[in-house]
Amino acid sequence: MHLGTHIIMDFFGCDREKLNDVNYVESELIKAALKADAHILGKHFHHFSPHGVTGILSLQESHLSIHTWPEHGIAAGDFFSCGNINAELACKLLSESLLATETKIKKLDRGEYNL
Amino acid sequence: MHLGTHIIMDFFGCDREKLNDVNYVESELIKAALKADAHILGKHFHHFSPHGVTGILSLQESHLSIHTWPEHGIAAGDFFSCGNINAELACKLLSESLLATETKIKKLDRGEYNL
Repeated sequence: MHLGTHIIMDFFGCDREKLNDVNYVESELIKAALKADAHILGKHFHHFSPHGVTGILSLQESHLSIHTWPEHGIAAGDFFSCGNINAELACKLLSESLLATETKIKKLDRGEYNL
Repeated sequence: MHLGTHIIMDFFGCDREKLNDVNYVESELIKAALKADAHILGKHFHHFSPHGVTGILSLQESHLSIHTWPEHGIAAGDFFSCGNINAELACKLLSESLLATETKIKKLDRGEYNL
C-alpha cells in the first residue's frame, strides 16, 4: 500500500519567454491542477531577477510545483497527489503550454507501508 | 550537468500527535529550511479534518513540502533545491522533530542537460 503518488516532470526545449512570464506560468499551473480534478488551497508564485519563475500550489490532494530556468529552456515540476487525481493529464497540459520538445517523467510511490 | 537536486523523504513511525499539530509542523519545517541555509519567500499550511497536515515553503532555492498522515504515523516530504543548500541536514532535523523511527530518502538530479 502507499499513501500518495509523486510525479516528477522535467520539461526541455521550452519556450523561454513563457518560462519567464510569471503570470503565464501561474495561469497554466492552475489550469493544469483544475483539469486534473485537484482542489487549490493556496498558492505562491515568484519571478526571480533577472529570470526564472517558481510556483507552488497547495492542494487538498497535496501539491503541484514548478521551477523554471528560461536561460536553459528547462522547467522542473512535481505533482504529489493522493486520491483520484489525473496527474498525467496535468503533466501533458503543462508540457503543451510550455511548448516543451521533450518531457521526462518519473512516478514514485510515496509513504509505502505494509497492512 | 543538472539544475537542481530533489530530496524525497518518507518518515515512518512518527509521533501521531505531532503529525497532526499544524503549528508544530509549520514551526519545524521553517526551522529545517533555515538551518539548511534556505531563504523563505512564502508559505502555506493547512490542517485537514479530521486529521492530517499539508505544508509548503516556497524558497529562493525552490521548495520544501511535507504531507502527514497521523493515522499511519507517516509523513512524506520533499526538498527541491538549487544552490548551496544542506538538504540532508533539513531531512535529519525533520526526522528528529517528528520522532520518526525510520526514514527513507531518495535523491534525484533534476533538469539534467548536456553542456
